[in-house]
Amino acid sequence: MGGDFAPEAAVKGAVMALDGLSADSRIVLFGDGKQIREILAAEGCAVDRFDIVPTAEVIEMGDHPAKAFQAKTDSSIVVGFGHLAKGAIDGFASAGSTGAMMVGSMYAVKPIEGVIRPTISSSIPTVSGRHALLLDVGLNVDCKPEVLAQYGLIGSIYAESVLGIERPRVAVLNIGEEEAKGNAQSKATHELLKADARINFVGNVEGSHIFSGKVADVIVCDGFVGNTVLKMAEGLYRINRAMGCDNAFWEEMNYENIGGTPVLGVNAPVIIGHGCSSPKAIRSMIRSTEQCIRAGLTDRLRRAFKEE
Amino acid sequence: MGGDFAPEAAVKGAVMALDGLSADSRIVLFGDGKQIREILAAEGCAVDRFDIVPTAEVIEMGDHPAKAFQAKTDSSIVVGFGHLAKGAIDGFASAGSTGAMMVGSMYAVKPIEGVIRPTISSSIPTVSGRHALLLDVGLNVDCKPEVLAQYGLIGSIYAESVLGIERPRVAVLNIGEEEAKGNAQSKATHELLKADARINFVGNVEGSHIFSGKVADVIVCDGFVGNTVLKMAEGLYRINRAMGCDNAFWEEMNYENIGGTPVLGVNAPVIIGHGCSSPKAIRSMIRSTEQCIRAGLTDRLRRAFKEE
Repeated sequence: MGGDFAPEAAVKGAVMALDGLSADSRIVLFGDGKQIREILAAEGCAVDRFDIVPTAEVIEMGDHPAKAFQAKTDSSIVVGFGHLAKGAIDGFASAGSTGAMMVGSMYAVKPIEGVIRPTISSSIPTVSGRHALLLDVGLNVDCKPEVLAQYGLIGSIYAESVLGIERPRVAVLNIGEEEAKGNAQSKATHELLKADARINFVGNVEGSHIFSGKVADVIVCDGFVGNTVLKMAEGLYRINRAMGCDNAFWEEMNYENIGGTPVLGVNAPVIIGHGCSSPKAIRSMIRSTEQCIRAGLTDRLRRAFKEE
Repeated sequence: MGGDFAPEAAVKGAVMALDGLSADSRIVLFGDGKQIREILAAEGCAVDRFDIVPTAEVIEMGDHPAKAFQAKTDSSIVVGFGHLAKGAIDGFASAGSTGAMMVGSMYAVKPIEGVIRPTISSSIPTVSGRHALLLDVGLNVDCKPEVLAQYGLIGSIYAESVLGIERPRVAVLNIGEEEAKGNAQSKATHELLKADARINFVGNVEGSHIFSGKVADVIVCDGFVGNTVLKMAEGLYRINRAMGCDNAFWEEMNYENIGGTPVLGVNAPVIIGHGCSSPKAIRSMIRSTEQCIRAGLTDRLRRAFKEE
C-alpha cells in the first residue's frame, strides 16, 4: 500500500488488475490488513482473491529514504522487499516513496552481477503505435559512457522480452545524426555501442524523433536529459489536455496508462509508480510487473551480464 | 538570400516584413540582383522599397562552413557579415548555412569582450502567453558553469530589452526543484547564478515547467539539453499537427512564428533562420532582427560585460 491515495487507490487498482491477470498469477497486498479488507468489501471483491501480508508502519514521503528503510521494518515497502529478496514473491511494485523503493532495489534486491549502475527507465508512446523505452530517466546523472553502453544492452533485452520487439533498434539520444555530433559523453557511448555485437545499434536519435518511432525502440541517455525529456512530455501532456487536445497518442503519455517506472538491472522485477497514482495507474503498474515476471526478464539480464 | 527556398522565400518574406517595419528602418537584401528584382516585380513591389547589394556566389549546405566563408567572398553571407562588421548595416539575418552564419558571428563580428562563448538561443512560447528564452540550444555542449552563468546574464538582458520583460526570472533547467539536485554542471551553475546580484535568479526549473511560464522567463541549460528540448518540441508540434491538434499555443511552436534563432554575445545582432524557412518565417526573422536593433541589445550586453 503506497502512494498519496493509498490504501484506497492501491486496493482498487489491484481489484481492477484481477481482470486480465494470468490464471496462475497471484497478487499479494502489503499493508494495513483491516483497511484492505474493508476496501475489498466495499468493492464487492472476495478477500481470497488476494494474499494479504499485514504491515503496520508507513514510510512517509518526507522521510529520509535510507533511514526510514532501516527504521520502519514493518512498512509495506520494507516487508515487500524482504519477500522479494527471499523469493517469496516474484516481483514488487509500489507507488510509495521512490527513495525507499530505490534503497530496497539497491540493497535488498541488489544489482545484477556485472551491472555497474541499475537504471530507471520509462516506456514512452510513439506515433508508430509501438512503445519505445527511454533510459535513464533520472536515477543516474553524469553517467560514464560504460554505464550508458550497459543501458543499451539492458534496454534491448527489456524491449525484446517485455515489449516483444524483435531486434530492438538501440540509439543514443544526441543533437545530430552524424557520428561526430554530441558531447564527450554521447560520442564515447556511441563508440561503445557500435562495437557491441549483441545490440542492434542504429546510431544517434535526435529529440525530434523520440516519439516518432521511426528511428529507435530503445533510447539511451544520461539521467539528466532523460528526466528533462520525461518531465517536459508530462508538462506538455497537461497543457494539451487543458486545451482540449485529446487523442490516442497523448493519452498514452498519461502516466495512468504507462504502467510505472521499471528499475532495471537488479535481481528481481521492481516497478515504481507515480506518487499520485490513481487506481487505473496502479492496475497498469501491476500488469507491468506481471509482464516482467512472465518474460523472464531478470534471468535474461543475468545471463547477458554474466558474459560481460 | 539564404535557405532551401531562396531566393523566392527570402524576397517574399522581406516584402511581407515591410508592413510593420518602423518608418526609419530599411531592409537590405543581399543576393542575385536580377533574381531579386524579378521576384519583386512578380510581387508587385517597387524595387526602391529595399536596398539591394548584389552578390554572385552561394554557400551551399554541404560546404565546409569555414572554408566556404574564406573562399566564397562574394556570397550573401560573407558580404552581409562584411557590411555588419563595418557598421554599414545594424543587424544581419539569414536562413542560409548555419555553420557559415556561426563563422561570421565568431570571426567577422566577434564575441563581445568578456563573453567567454557566444550562444544561440530560442524564444519559446509559454501557456502564460508570454514568451520565454531558452539558451543554449545547441551551439555549445559540455559548457563550463562559468559559461552557463554568463548565459543567465545574457538571457536576462535579452528578455528585458527585446522581450520587454521587467526583472526576468532566470532559472537553471534541472531535474528537481531542490538546490541540491542535478548534475555537477547544474549545481555549480546554480551557485554562480545565485551569487549574481544583477540577475533575478529563481532557482531550478524542471522540464515540466519549460512551457508553463510559471517559473522562469529565461531558462539556462547546456546546449546538449537545450537542443534536445527544442527538437523534441518541434517533433511533438509536427505530431500534434498531423493529429489535427491545433491551437494558439502549439502554433507558437511553429518555427514560422518564432522569428529565428538569435546569436547572443557578439558585437551586433545576428539571427539564424531555419534552413527550410518559408516567407512567413523570413518575415518573423526580419522583425526579430529589427527588434534587437531597436532595443539596443548589443550596447546593453557590452556594458554588462565590461563590468564582468
